[in-house]
Order: sequence, then structure tokens, then C-alpha cells
Amino acid sequence: MNAIKLGILGGGQLGRMLLQAGLDFNLYTLVLDPDEHAPCRHLCEEFVHGDFKDYDTVYAFGKRCTHVTIEIEHVNVDALFALEKDGIQVYPKPASLQTIQDKGLQKEFFQKNNIPTSDFRLLQDAAELEANVDFLPAFQKLRRGGYDGNGVTRLSSANDFHKAFQAPTVLEKLVEFETEISVICARNVQGEVKAFPVVEQVMHPEHNLVDYLLAPAQIAYKLQRMAIEIATHVTTGLDIVGLLAVEMFVTRDGQILVNEVAPRPHNSGHHTMKANATSQFEQHLRAILGLPLGDAEPHCPAVLVNLLGEAGHSGEAVYEGLETTLQEPGVHIHLYGKKFTRPFRKMGHLTVLAPTIEEVKQKADTIKNRLKIIA
Amino acid sequence: MNAIKLGILGGGQLGRMLLQAGLDFNLYTLVLDPDEHAPCRHLCEEFVHGDFKDYDTVYAFGKRCTHVTIEIEHVNVDALFALEKDGIQVYPKPASLQTIQDKGLQKEFFQKNNIPTSDFRLLQDAAELEANVDFLPAFQKLRRGGYDGNGVTRLSSANDFHKAFQAPTVLEKLVEFETEISVICARNVQGEVKAFPVVEQVMHPEHNLVDYLLAPAQIAYKLQRMAIEIATHVTTGLDIVGLLAVEMFVTRDGQILVNEVAPRPHNSGHHTMKANATSQFEQHLRAILGLPLGDAEPHCPAVLVNLLGEAGHSGEAVYEGLETTLQEPGVHIHLYGKKFTRPFRKMGHLTVLAPTIEEVKQKADTIKNRLKIIA
Repeated sequence: MNAIKLGILGGGQLGRMLLQAGLDFNLYTLVLDPDEHAPCRHLCEEFVHGDFKDYDTVYAFGKRCTHVTIEIEHVNVDALFALEKDGIQVYPKPASLQTIQDKGLQKEFFQKNNIPTSDFRLLQDAAELEANVDFLPAFQKLRRGGYDGNGVTRLSSANDFHKAFQAPTVLEKLVEFETEISVICARNVQGEVKAFPVVEQVMHPEHNLVDYLLAPAQIAYKLQRMAIEIATHVTTGLDIVGLLAVEMFVTRDGQILVNEVAPRPHNSGHHTMKANATSQFEQHLRAILGLPLGDAEPHCPAVLVNLLGEAGHSGEAVYEGLETTLQEPGVHIHLYGKKFTRPFRKMGHLTVLAPTIEEVKQKADTIKNRLKIIA
Repeated sequence: MNAIKLGILGGGQLGRMLLQAGLDFNLYTLVLDPDEHAPCRHLCEEFVHGDFKDYDTVYAFGKRCTHVTIEIEHVNVDALFALEKDGIQVYPKPASLQTIQDKGLQKEFFQKNNIPTSDFRLLQDAAELEANVDFLPAFQKLRRGGYDGNGVTRLSSANDFHKAFQAPTVLEKLVEFETEISVICARNVQGEVKAFPVVEQVMHPEHNLVDYLLAPAQIAYKLQRMAIEIATHVTTGLDIVGLLAVEMFVTRDGQILVNEVAPRPHNSGHHTMKANATSQFEQHLRAILGLPLGDAEPHCPAVLVNLLGEAGHSGEAVYEGLETTLQEPGVHIHLYGKKFTRPFRKMGHLTVLAPTIEEVKQKADTIKNRLKIIA
């Protein structure tokens, strides 16, 4: 594998975990990120400090690689088209990425390909909202550039129009759902597809907040099969090479609707580093390097607890309660290499393993609040 | 964990896998190695090009760290004593390392602590061999500096004396053994000890060569318990903090004899990265950082196949047959980041996983010769 020069657009935690898995394959790695303190900076052969949204920067970076991949969607896709034309292996393919980068095109793709998804309307600007009052309650989502809940606002009635986005958006009909689930699929250069088991967002029994992710999801077997079928269908339809994380709703009447997709390693797959023989990161690398995909079956049930910076704390991170957290058998920590914490910043995650679903949930409830990231 | 500055003496594959696991803990890492192309060079915050056998180099390096550990035994122990005195956390402790570095002191330690081991005699030089002809057949081992089969010679009779070492050596009575096994123990700063299951060397049915390592070992349960008890006893006796790999013989009459020990991650534990919730590398880090030890139980049986450079090939490594090797479900590769291959150079390993011992052995037999590392 000496001949492979893998360039990664983005040097955050997803890139970092990809590099970590990439060590197994002895790749020459390059990373492009606008933050000179990016978590990847010390973990690659070449760290390039630059903007992955800029055409010239991405093109020049990619020309030094044999393979180019991403850890964030919001990159300059025109440069990727040019690199692909020049014979660089760019995965996900620029055409797939172009559709996914724009939530409007994503929705239209779902519609054209009979992929179940919530009703939507495309708006050029907020002025068009008045004509769509009948469509509320809905979520208004920026077509481009949103991430991690940014770029999304809930519009219940015309009274909320003051907080509406002024840019091109998708207006998505509010879905009454039972559960949010996700499936991560991998598809390699040769077209082989494998899906990781369905992951479920478990909500806190009182607060309306995600408590943790549970794998495998505790939904009916039929729904699991349906979710995997849909995710596989989307992956093939979008001509993905690499990973595709497919986020879905299970509605109260037992339907599955695709919410949105991301063509890269995803937060809902981090537990695979501990619970599965093949992690999502190894799978992504196998896929884009044209290797056979690994076994995606889990060894055991797992819970993923995201570690966020404590509210009210900004500054150099201190991990309080680490010892008592790791004292529980089957609990593992993964920190993202970030020196500074901020309120709700994703600083790492815990993976909890146990032989049964009951035990893993119980263990997660026991330890989930022991670790505090303060400054 | 921002405050920890972990220095590793040695930048080879063991250091590389330790750094890979260390990413989970967000440590600031420094590596010292005399080879400027060492596999660790791009994977740490500071790579120091220098000799880990030199007092001044090791002392100066260690003074920049909060914690110092090793990936090779043959380091300057006097410098480590000085660092320990200065309050740096040095694990394994210099005193443990001093005993282990000298195979003569190791043997005397086993003897004094009632740890079963083969008979031995200590020789100042080859001239003393004549007086010990009665002790043959035996292995003559260099007291210091041997590694990976280097520094060991078999003396069957006086006719072999021409190939004897001239330096201080241990003469070890030849043991008629059934199986070679190893147990890796971890002991943390607080004194907690955990052992990974016993690993067995499986020999090729025809050639007298190790075919692969099998975990867990297929020896009687009583012998497994005995092996773990002995390894735990040695670990505590040597006051280890970190890992201790204990290599043992199972004799034809059902005894267990300790062969030798290494106070660091060990080849016989590499499968734990895939087959266990806690790898030996995570365990070593937990141990030396004073964290609770992780669960050492395996998810499933595993085989470890070492990938050696093909005989007759020297130069830039090419991995032939990688695709057909990885096609087999449950097979994972780990390459060590070495650009050049040489005959029998350790270039990486394969881990094979399966639900049963029979399946894992069968799978290992199927794939073990598919991958060739040529130049």
C-alpha cells in the first residue's frame, strides 16, 4: 500500500479516527484543514493548512494524492470534478457529493427514486413563506452549509417567521415520529454493499434530549430489515463509494422516512470501533481503496454516549470523573484531541459494551453522567 | 488528559500501535528512536531522533515528559533511574527493567521467587563451556541485548562450541515441551492486575516452524489457570506497572515453565486489537496512566499470522494477494508502516476472527499463504 497517497479534506475528529484506522493499511496520508490546530495535524505525513471550500486549494491538494476522500461534506465540489477528470480517485464521487451537499437536491433525489421521505417544498427566500403557511408546522433547513443542528429552524406558525432563514431553504413537513434511527452503509469501488446494523437514538425519559445511541436498535425485526433495505437502495442510487450514513424516522404508524444522508463516517457509527470486528473507518478505507468490505456484524450490543463540553465552561479541557467512568467494565473512552472545551462542543465519546441490551442500557445509565468536561 | 506528556523509548511497530491506541486518550506524545525513518515518526507531537541507549539522550528526552514508557527493553536504565528520582513517572519501573534486561538476573529472579523455569547456569564467557558439557543439550543466550531469536544459539554437544557466544550468557537446559504459550498481564499504578487469556503457538504440521498464534490456547483448563496464576505471580513479583508478556513452555509431563518475560506490548497480544474489547495497547496505557484496567475478555477466538518479508526480496514493499486475503470474512490486516521489506522482516500481521476455534483455525489455514510481501 506504499503507493497510495490518501488525501482527506477536513482534519477534525472524523478525519482523526480515519487516520487512526488507516495506520493498519500503511497509507501515506495528507490532510487539508483551515484550522492549524485541527485534531489531525500531527497524525499525517503532510498537513496542509488551507480552505477546503476554495477551488485552487482543493485542486492543488488533490493533485498530490492518488486518492481523495472527505470527512466533511462542505468542500469545493468543482475542484473534485476536475481532480476526477485528471484521474485521481475521488470518493465519494463528486456527482454524489453534489447532490448531497444541497438538501434540496437530496430531497428531489429521494422523491425521484421512490425513497420514502417527508413532504417538502423548496423556497428561494423567506418571502415565499407567506404562500406556504398551509404547510406548517415544518422545519426550515438551509439547502447548503448546515451541520449538527445548525441551519435548521422549526416554524410552527406565521408567528415564527421572524426567525426564518433568508437563503434558499427546504421546508420539510413536521413528522410525528416514534424513534430516530440510522444505518451506515458501505459500498466499495467494485459495487459491493454492506450495512452496519440499525442504530437507535434513545431519548431521556424526562427531558426531550437524546440520551445516547443504542446498537442494535430495539425496533421490530421487520423495521430493521426495511431500514437496511432503504439505506442500501439510497447508497446504490447515489452511486456512493465509501460510507453513507442514512438517518431515518420511524413514524408512529410504522413507516420509515429518510431524513437526511451523509457520505462519510458518522457519529452514529463510532461504537463500531469497539463493538464490531470492522469499524466504520476501516470499512470506509476498504471501500475507497477497492478492497473487499469487512464483516459488519457486531460482537455485542453497544451504547455510544457523546461527550460534550459542560455548559458554562470554556478553556483548556479537564476531564473530571474519568477514573470512576472507566471503572465500570466494558466502558471505553475516545477523546478527539481537542485542547479547548466550549459549551456543548463534541469532545469525545464513551462506548459501553455488554452481552445483552438490558445490561448495556443499565450500564450506560449508570455511567453517562459521571464524566464532566470542564475548564 | 491534556496535561500528560507521554514519552516512548523506541519508535518501531510496538510504539506505533501504542500511539494508535493512545489517540483515544488525547495524550501529548513524544518518541525517541535512532532511526529517522522509524514507523512512529509522523504519529507523535515530537519525534526525537536519538539513541535510547545513551544516558544523556534518554535523560534529556525524559525531562520533557510527565510519563515515560518503552516499546523495547534495551534502553538506558540509569537514565530512567535518574528520571524516576526527579519525579517523572517511569513505567515499567527502572528496577523491574534492570532485572528483565539481563536474562541472567531474570533467571535468578525466577529461582528466588519459586517461579518454575528450566535449569540454567551463568557463564562469563565461552571458555566456561568446557566445564559444563554435562549440562548439554542447552540453549546459550546472551544475557543482554538479544531480541526476536537473535542472541540465542543451540548447543547440542561440544561439537557446537565453535558457534558459542563469547560474551556473558545464560546456559539453559533444553526443555522437551509440548507447546509454547504466553500470557500478557497488565498491572496498573494502583496494583490492580488483569491477564489476557493464554495464547498458544501453533506449529506447522510438517515443518518445525510456528504457523500462527491461537487465542485462547487449546490446552487443558487446569493448565490455562496455572499459566495465568504464574504470569500474575511474576508480574507482581517484578513490581510491573504496565504490561508483562510471560512466555512459557508446557512440558510433555504437564508442567509449566517460564521461558522469558518482556515488560511491554508483545507480538503474542496483537490479536487483542480486534478480538478483545480492550487491546493490550489500551491496557498498557490505562495501567501506566493510573486508570482502572479494561475488561480483558475476548469477543471470540482469534488467530494471529505474522507477515514476514518474503525470502529473496529486499526493497520497497509490495503486498501481493491482499484482495484475496481480505475477501475472507473475519480477516483484518495491520501493516507496520515500513517502506522497505527484507527477508523475514516483520512487516505486519493478519488477525483472523471466527465464532469457534475450529472455524478460526480453518480460516487461518485457508488464508495464511495468500499474502506475499515482495519487492
